[in-house]
Amino acid sequence: MNHKGLLIIVSGPSGAGKGTICKELLQRDPSILVSVSATTRQPRNGEQDGISYHFLTRDRFENMIQNNGFLEHACVYNNYYGTPKDFVVEQISSGKNVLLEIDIQGALQVKNKYPEGVFVFILPPSMKTLKTRIEGRGSETPESLKMRLSSAVSEIELIKNYDYFIVNDTVNHATDILQAIITAEKCRVNADIKEIVRRFKEETNVKTID
Amino acid sequence: MNHKGLLIIVSGPSGAGKGTICKELLQRDPSILVSVSATTRQPRNGEQDGISYHFLTRDRFENMIQNNGFLEHACVYNNYYGTPKDFVVEQISSGKNVLLEIDIQGALQVKNKYPEGVFVFILPPSMKTLKTRIEGRGSETPESLKMRLSSAVSEIELIKNYDYFIVNDTVNHATDILQAIITAEKCRVNADIKEIVRRFKEETNVKTID
Repeated sequence: MNHKGLLIIVSGPSGAGKGTICKELLQRDPSILVSVSATTRQPRNGEQDGISYHFLTRDRFENMIQNNGFLEHACVYNNYYGTPKDFVVEQISSGKNVLLEIDIQGALQVKNKYPEGVFVFILPPSMKTLKTRIEGRGSETPESLKMRLSSAVSEIELIKNYDYFIVNDTVNHATDILQAIITAEKCRVNADIKEIVRRFKEETNVKTID
Repeated sequence: MNHKGLLIIVSGPSGAGKGTICKELLQRDPSILVSVSATTRQPRNGEQDGISYHFLTRDRFENMIQNNGFLEHACVYNNYYGTPKDFVVEQISSGKNVLLEIDIQGALQVKNKYPEGVFVFILPPSMKTLKTRIEGRGSETPESLKMRLSSAVSEIELIKNYDYFIVNDTVNHATDILQAIITAEKCRVNADIKEIVRRFKEETNVKTID
């Protein structure tokens, strides 16, 4: 198994179910860490700094942007949101796996800064299911529902930038596949393998096989 | 899930345990097909044509080599051995997964002809274990054992040509990982994904979401 941890990016259109799958994954495998986002928006009732979000001032946030301190960031309704880079890089270097549940625009930014991440796209089983799921939330007007669905279709085209796709038919099955992807990726032949080859050669040289 | 099947190449040094892992995999998942090798050597007692091997004449075999009919082939003690290409290509096109258990030289030939295969390298937990396993077969002289171990070390360097590596600590665990790799590879974003994107777009256009 490789020494470095994985950065697993789970992404997909709104309503595809990425949140539910990530929650199930973390319940099954508590060794996986979640990156806490930073934001400049005000904390809401019950939100804790460092747990719900890292609450930062606008100055601090913009300073971090300048210093390449985010894997991705966006400005929504005049508030910044972003994924601080240091935490992710430190945990991965120490062999931990880090999960990032993120929208598609954010995922594409992460891909630019950390292309060795494992990029997983969650697909709904069909557009019909996606429609039913978004309607079920009860928070959309007919107009905004239409917009969400049409943007989902354009977003699905961006799947070509990802490594894997999972059709979210049931949460259990989709999480099984996500776990299989993580298991497989830990066994990818990559730069780390040099260490393993070195170990075998060393073992031979020091004559432990005689 | 992708429509095309996978060609899974399981390879590694002699004594690493690739045969045992493949046997366990086929028992767990009978939907995986095994490619039957062709050979020019004489059938031994109980061997059946088309099951143990495809027994071919030397002329026929050399003709197939000329016509690029093998994914790989080798000549050992003046007998040819090879993996016929047609069977593998047909099964994969029809969505079946095909397993190829093969030595490292053969795997590298397959890689040239079918680079989209899934190349898995089986490693022993240590050189000491490898030594114990080869000794356990009772078929080696001290000289040939030494040669096998030293060739295993050179072979391990060829791991860089593979996609995945599995440390064969126990057959069960190694087979779990091999199954996870197959599950993950079925969800790889590749050319097939275009079909999925097309389906979603079509579903939207035909207004099933209205």
